[in-house]
Amino acid sequence: MKPNLQSLADLDRVIHEPSRLMLAMILSTVESADFLFLQRETGLTKGNLSAHLSKLEKAGYVKIEKTFKGKYPLTICKLTPAGRKALTDYRLTLEKGLGKTKR
Amino acid sequence: MKPNLQSLADLDRVIHEPSRLMLAMILSTVESADFLFLQRETGLTKGNLSAHLSKLEKAGYVKIEKTFKGKYPLTICKLTPAGRKALTDYRLTLEKGLGKTKR
Repeated sequence: MKPNLQSLADLDRVIHEPSRLMLAMILSTVESADFLFLQRETGLTKGNLSAHLSKLEKAGYVKIEKTFKGKYPLTICKLTPAGRKALTDYRLTLEKGLGKTKR
Repeated sequence: MKPNLQSLADLDRVIHEPSRLMLAMILSTVESADFLFLQRETGLTKGNLSAHLSKLEKAGYVKIEKTFKGKYPLTICKLTPAGRKALTDYRLTLEKGLGKTKR
């Protein structure tokens, strides 16, 4: 397949940011995940993780529910159907733009 | 291959920016390219193209030579060996992080 370079210009910038790409990828493989799990998986600081989750939530890609487990706050994150579609579109656009890498 | 998500955090930000990724991809397929050719291929404005080429040049990824063709200025751009390596590393890191997309 010949790479379609101009398609790279259309990459979804919400997903393209590496930390958010990591988050979307993780959330695409689980039913839901809590804040601490995401922090451990991504290695992000609390502040950065919060900020990136907020951007994903604003875009409608992630649903965030704040609840409690006993007396501890629990933040549960889920990829929405729109988020799942955005991630798939992003990955297909990237594959179309980059093709397969030869070492 | 199981995606290695944390590797996404190491993506080279110079290459990751979509316009610069497009430029690096184009330059990786030609011996050299002039400014007007790159403008046409990428659809970028003069100002944006200049700015992105400068960033690539500062990173040592692109070599830029300003010369003349008759009385017209000619700007010739080449991917350096470091740029070619950075692009390959970037693509492999991305493939490692994202795996293959299922539709």
